[in-house]
Parts: sequence; C-alpha cells; structure tokens
Amino acid sequence: MRTAFYISDGTAITSEAFGHALLSLFPTEFKHQTIPFVESVEKALEVKEKINKTCARSKEPALVFHTFVNNDIREIIDSCDGVIYNFLEQFVTPLEEELKIKAKPKAHRTHSIHENSYDYRIEAVNYAMANDDGSKVTNYEDADVILVGVSRSGKTPSALYLALQYGIKAANYPFTDEDMDDLQLPSFLKPYKKKLFGLTIDAQRLIDIRDNRMSNSKYASPRQCRMEVREVEKLYKNEKIPFLNTTKFSVEEITAKILSETGLQRYKY
Amino acid sequence: MRTAFYISDGTAITSEAFGHALLSLFPTEFKHQTIPFVESVEKALEVKEKINKTCARSKEPALVFHTFVNNDIREIIDSCDGVIYNFLEQFVTPLEEELKIKAKPKAHRTHSIHENSYDYRIEAVNYAMANDDGSKVTNYEDADVILVGVSRSGKTPSALYLALQYGIKAANYPFTDEDMDDLQLPSFLKPYKKKLFGLTIDAQRLIDIRDNRMSNSKYASPRQCRMEVREVEKLYKNEKIPFLNTTKFSVEEITAKILSETGLQRYKY
Repeated sequence: MRTAFYISDGTAITSEAFGHALLSLFPTEFKHQTIPFVESVEKALEVKEKINKTCARSKEPALVFHTFVNNDIREIIDSCDGVIYNFLEQFVTPLEEELKIKAKPKAHRTHSIHENSYDYRIEAVNYAMANDDGSKVTNYEDADVILVGVSRSGKTPSALYLALQYGIKAANYPFTDEDMDDLQLPSFLKPYKKKLFGLTIDAQRLIDIRDNRMSNSKYASPRQCRMEVREVEKLYKNEKIPFLNTTKFSVEEITAKILSETGLQRYKY
Repeated sequence: MRTAFYISDGTAITSEAFGHALLSLFPTEFKHQTIPFVESVEKALEVKEKINKTCARSKEPALVFHTFVNNDIREIIDSCDGVIYNFLEQFVTPLEEELKIKAKPKAHRTHSIHENSYDYRIEAVNYAMANDDGSKVTNYEDADVILVGVSRSGKTPSALYLALQYGIKAANYPFTDEDMDDLQLPSFLKPYKKKLFGLTIDAQRLIDIRDNRMSNSKYASPRQCRMEVREVEKLYKNEKIPFLNTTKFSVEEITAKILSETGLQRYKY
C-alpha cells in the first residue's frame, strides 16, 4: 500500500485536506501519515529520513503533500525520495498576478489562535455545551440558532460543529415523549421562533440508532419513533420552521445546509 | 474588496480549505462567500449569474475556488466572469501517472456520511459529552485519551475537536480547588495513567480568562490561578504525565500536538 505523508510547519490540517481530497478520487487504499510542526532544519532532516526509509521499504515512492512557506525547510523536504505535491506553489504566482500583490508567506497562517475568530469559537463552544439538550432554556436570547428535534436526530454533534468550526452559538432543544401528546411549540421557544431550525430523521434510522443505545425500550420502539417523527414534522410545517431530514447526511453536510438555508453569519472561514 | 467564492457540489469544505490557505498568504482582506451543494445545471446557472453580478458591481473579477467533478456543472461555473482556481485539475493528471490508476471522480467523496469513520466520530462525540468535565469517572476504560488540567485550560474544546474531527474518544477531568491541597492523582485515574494527557496554561492567561467569566472571584484570583497551575505542573512532572502549555495554541494546534506526541490512532483522515 502506498504511503501518503501530510507535512507542514503548522497543524498540517491544510495539507491533509488537500491530499485527502485528491486521493479520495482514486479507487485504492493509502496509508496515511501526518507530521505537523516541522519547524526546524533538524526536524525536517529527521522527516526526510523517515520518508526515505518508507520509500526504500515499499519500493514505491511515498506521496508527500506539504504546504511549507519557509524555503530552507521546504528544500529539505523537496529533496526526499518521495513524490512532492505542493499546492501553494502552483497557485501563488497566478494569484499574485491577478491580485497585483506579492504573497507574504508566514507560518501558522491558518488554524492558529491569532485568527480574529478564535475567541468567538471558544465562546460558542462554551455556549453550545451550556445549552445542550434543553439543559437551560433561559439563554436563547444569545443564540444564533436553536436546533430542535427528537432525541438522536443529530442536534448535539451539529451544534458542536457549528460552534467549533464557525463560531456560531447553537443551542439545542429536544422534543421528548412528554411533549408528544399534541406537540406544540413550548412557550420559552416562541419568542425565538426565527432562530429555530428543525432536524428530522427517517423513523427506521431512528429506530436503529435508539435500539443500539437502549435495546427493547419504549424509547426505541417502532411505534414511538414513528409517532415522534410524525409529530415534529407536523409541528415544523404548522409553525413554518425550516427543517432538514438528516438521515443521509454527515454533520458537515447538515451544518453546510443549515448555513446555506439560514444565511447565518460565520465567524470563521 | 475582492470577493472569493468557494463552490462545490458537496459541502464546499475542501474548496474553502484550499482557497483560504492560498488567500491567507496575501496581506489584504477578502469578502468570502461559500455556495455548497451546487448539484444541478439550474443551480449552476444561478450561481454563475450571481458571480457575474458580483464581478460587474466591483469591476474586479471575483476569485472562484471550486472542486467540481461533474463536467457539465463545472463547465458552467468555468464560463463565469470570475477567475477560476481548480486545484483538483492541476494535480489529477500527475497523480494518475504516478499511481498508474485512473481517477474516478464522484461527488461527496469527502465529508459525507459514507466515510467508514463516520459512526466512530458520532460515537466519540457522545462519549466526549458524557465524560466531559469529570461528570462521570467510571467510563475511562473506553477512553482513547483522558485530558486533565485546571478549569479553563482548554480541555473541553480539545476533547470535542478530537471526537468530531478524528473519532477519538476523549474524556476530560478537571483538577479543582478541592484537589489542590497537595495534589495527587485521584484513585480512579490511576489505572488509566497511560491514557492521561495534561494541559496547562500560563497563570496570567488563566487569570484573564477566569476573570472574564467570574470577575473578582477567588476562582479568578491571581493567587488561586498561580497555585493551581503550579500544583498541576508539579503533578505532571512527578507522575511523568505528558503535558502541553496551551497558552499560545488554538484547539487545532493543541489537538495536532496531542496526536503527534501520543501517536493516538485516528479514525478519520
């Protein structure tokens, strides 16, 4: 199996995103290895040695995705036995020509604490944790969005992702069995109706997920799951709450759809 | 201000990572606009119109970062008035030659629920939530890592990031004021000593963060913060627990360093 290295003087998150997006186009498996924080000549020489050993062992050169900006370090990595894919290099010159500005490469450009958005994101995580699962219903004034839905429809991971990635303060409130007899919008949500976003899920998928957690419970019974889904979808339609069926979507897709439908302002790009 | 569009038939997370990494090299500001899920010819024509209007308004062509795999849709976007940066295109042919395999482009390659790692990630988020802030100390058997540290040293956001991004089950346990009189490792942590990773933080930064939350409290007092930091660092050294000072690092950097120091297995690349 071919080894792919993702290397950077920072977190290597960008190298990974770049390399992974490319390799996912190929119908084969790779061994992945990330090496972040290669910030010194010594460390770079060590990494080069490691790549060379991998190449020697497998007879096929390793693939090396990197995003170095420091030239001395980059040259060391570029001189390894692997095949180098440097996406910054390919695009910097055309962008300089278009923008009529010289690039000013510096390390830790992305994913560092110095981004303006960083404090927003940590504050948003604190908010999402404090307002998870209806644990507090008095803080909705501060919410950017309030995710509602039945238990296990994806509210918590989506709220956390919105907070961590985008600095969006997302509360979440679950409609539970007790609410279900003629489900109405709870009074404490009414003043914030414009912030509500509903999640729903196919009953069969909900049954599977709940059964996995609490086998043979009323909570996981087909009858209960079907009823809950029916009730929340009726509520969304009656109250004109925008909503999304999460059955086939990842948390990245759910949150991208929420952002695109609501036009919520992001604090991080 | 120049507008940068990030467009894709999926979440557009890859286009954003790619465009943002490039634009962050330039010492100027951009207006960012993400348009995900451009999956039909109609939607593509709508987006093209939107880009063209933006170009006409600002007199400077917009920058368009995209990762389309569907040719019909890509050609529509490529025919807009913006300047196109398509990073897949530049690298696919060299990779095909190196791998001696043809690329098989398909939509939703990355960031979809069909990744093998998806269920791990959701399970890990559930685990991190259930084992946040020492709320349960009986589940550490299942942890991949247990983050320890004083209140507000970065444990919760780091644990959530490890779970959401990498599918790693990270519990976190806070050392509080009550523990501080001759701080020892609590008995329930001792069997899991190999899973422990300590966070620490400069006392002054801790004072600032805590003062922001609870002004003029004992919790935020310089004396208290200095004592807590001193005690946990002593504990880490005595018990040989690997640790990291988080003061200058983002959650991405903290987790990248934890992964790189511990060699923890990731479930997602």
